Amino acid sequence: MKIATLVGSLRQNSYNLQLALTLQERYKDKLDVEILDIRSLPHFDQDKELDPPDVVQRFKAAIAEADGVIIVTPEYNWSVPGVLKNALDWCSRGERVFVGKPVLTMGATPGMLGTVRAQLHLREILSSPGIQAKVLPPGGNEVLVNMAMNKFDPEQRRLVDEATLTFLDGVVEKFIAFVQEHTVQPVRA
Amino acid sequence: MKIATLVGSLRQNSYNLQLALTLQERYKDKLDVEILDIRSLPHFDQDKELDPPDVVQRFKAAIAEADGVIIVTPEYNWSVPGVLKNALDWCSRGERVFVGKPVLTMGATPGMLGTVRAQLHLREILSSPGIQAKVLPPGGNEVLVNMAMNKFDPEQRRLVDEATLTFLDGVVEKFIAFVQEHTVQPVRA
Amino acid sequence: MKIATLVGSLRQNSYNLQLALTLQERYKDKLDVEILDIRSLPHFDQDKELDPPDVVQRFKAAIAEADGVIIVTPEYNWSVPGVLKNALDWCSRGERVFVGKPVLTMGATPGMLGTVRAQLHLREILSSPGIQAKVLPPGGNEVLVNMAMNKFDPEQRRLVDEATLTFLDGVVEKFIAFVQEHTVQPVRA
Amino acid sequence: MKIATLVGSLRQNSYNLQLALTLQERYKDKLDVEILDIRSLPHFDQDKELDPPDVVQRFKAAIAEADGVIIVTPEYNWSVPGVLKNALDWCSRGERVFVGKPVLTMGATPGMLGTVRAQLHLREILSSPGIQAKVLPPGGNEVLVNMAMNKFDPEQRRLVDEATLTFLDGVVEKFIAFVQEHTVQPVRA
Repeated sequence: MKIATLVGSLRQNSYNLQLALTLQERYKDKLDVEILDIRSLPHFDQDKELDPPDVVQRFKAAIAEADGVIIVTPEYNWSVPGVLKNALDWCSRGERVFVGKPVLTMGATPGMLGTVRAQLHLREILSSPGIQAKVLPPGGNEVLVNMAMNKFDPEQRRLVDEATLTFLDGVVEKFIAFVQEHTVQPVRA
Repeated sequence: MKIATLVGSLRQNSYNLQLALTLQERYKDKLDVEILDIRSLPHFDQDKELDPPDVVQRFKAAIAEADGVIIVTPEYNWSVPGVLKNALDWCSRGERVFVGKPVLTMGATPGMLGTVRAQLHLREILSSPGIQAKVLPPGGNEVLVNMAMNKFDPEQRRLVDEATLTFLDGVVEKFIAFVQEHTVQPVRA
Repeated sequence: MKIATLVGSLRQNSYNLQLALTLQERYKDKLDVEILDIRSLPHFDQDKELDPPDVVQRFKAAIAEADGVIIVTPEYNWSVPGVLKNALDWCSRGERVFVGKPVLTMGATPGMLGTVRAQLHLREILSSPGIQAKVLPPGGNEVLVNMAMNKFDPEQRRLVDEATLTFLDGVVEKFIAFVQEHTVQPVRA
Repeated sequence: MKIATLVGSLRQNSYNLQLALTLQERYKDKLDVEILDIRSLPHFDQDKELDPPDVVQRFKAAIAEADGVIIVTPEYNWSVPGVLKNALDWCSRGERVFVGKPVLTMGATPGMLGTVRAQLHLREILSSPGIQAKVLPPGGNEVLVNMAMNKFDPEQRRLVDEATLTFLDGVVEKFIAFVQEHTVQPVRA
């Protein structure tokens, strides 16, 4: 199962990047997690939406080819980072590569609230007509990693908190089932 | 009165750019409206937040020196464009140049809803602890220009709808009073 | 197909009630639309959530037995009316009768914005863990009846605007398919 | 200083009621905190907005006479309880008693998130044109009491967690200054 992953922070030691790396490693038998580069995407310009630069085309193709998308993002100013929203903006015009795509969202933060406000904005964005992703419903599936400094190992650059990992295992299991359920099976002759 | 203006769209014939140009021209006796370049700002990178690139420093200085800020933005996917959020993200870390700054928000759109969903997100973002702007309260002051194709003149590149202009006059008048009220007067010897 | 309907306004000549009556009449060959009484429900009291008053029990049973729910609501103060939220609050505790239930939301308003802000709050509420409804995705399906005074006939107490009715026909068609898709078929021997 | 207080929960042992009782007792030298009854208010009915029942008139008068309002509320289904929204709905029509009124919001919850989602909805509601309250800005002032079972004493029915009380002291101090600043001083001859 091919999973494209977007990380909302560009910081080198970002907890969210470490969370994405944890996904990549921990579930490697089940998921082929590719972390996509969103830093190289220029700012969205509607004058170029139908003929975007190559780097945007490659990015959109990677989303289109994935079976599902996982978005791992910090909260900046009670919303999603501009760089992440920019990546989504490109995907919403011309070929709309998120339509019907299964998506899981999560986030990590040093504070108590675990990016909950960013997740609310993100969920609205993902349900809008230009995106129309199929987001895993939140009930029981909200991965809000708070107090991140206590839950990640800075050497290994991985999430190491056992309770959080166990919860994550359950959510990833449900997301895998959700992707299978929403995947349109190609017709075979 | 010095007004820094951010336009959320990079499209050349953007209605929102035209709305900003209308502000610049129509109120030139009262307001010195400067439209800031947000396209040149790189994606926010927390590793550089305390020593941002020159272009970011100049941008932040322009916000810091302004008496007030007007944000004119389209709605992309039920939220603000990534490029606009990115500009705000830079302003929220290191020197937080929006704290206490009087802000007016508005938007134009071809559809019926006049960017109302983007304005809701924007208002939350602007009230968050890293930004803490003083936003003109919405009651009676919401500039939501819908059906934009009927209200702008493509030749002049200006808002020309009389009813909307009259409403805009009233809101700008209230914003000027709001800026005066919130400006800390420098102590004179 | 049995459809329980909640109307967020208690006003006798409410446009939203008229919209619900229109649904009842116009689609009577396909849908058995019952408008539930939410005025008689007392304010939600957590001390009684496990043994609610009879009127609440009957209300919850009607939701539980329905194949789908349509919520027709005005916007009060940028959100849903308290009386509607109260009905949903009862449904979210003890037996959680909305879990997995297909839901369509819509609204009518005299202003330009057609209850869009109330719909955003409502969608968040409906996706929360205590409710977990299956809401028809918004893309192409947002019934936001603005300028209501021009679209309803006060004598007939019905929506009469042809363009809106045609749009409504399409959304209801999609909702019927959505209900069928989400209905767990009973196993037959 | 006269402070009207609304408690969003009707549960007898509600943490939010206990938080309101803590305010009443702890700041009794500075604040005259009256907890208003919102359970007795009937569901808002627009047909009666201009001539509301006596109980509503008394409630609105108490808000009108207060120097400020404190709203203490749980989160129900990612939003405010219906009973609280209902009280606000009455206040927004006919005589709009919240216009310009200084307001502080807070909440307590057994979970980790301390009612943050309800507070976001509440802040939007309070800024809408029918309410137009002056809400204490959130930066540094968000009273989100999480893990409530560890912070309240069930015998005394009071908040007893020292760190939270110290934080609360600071916020209440700022709210008192905010009320003084926003109070229109009566003209004296």
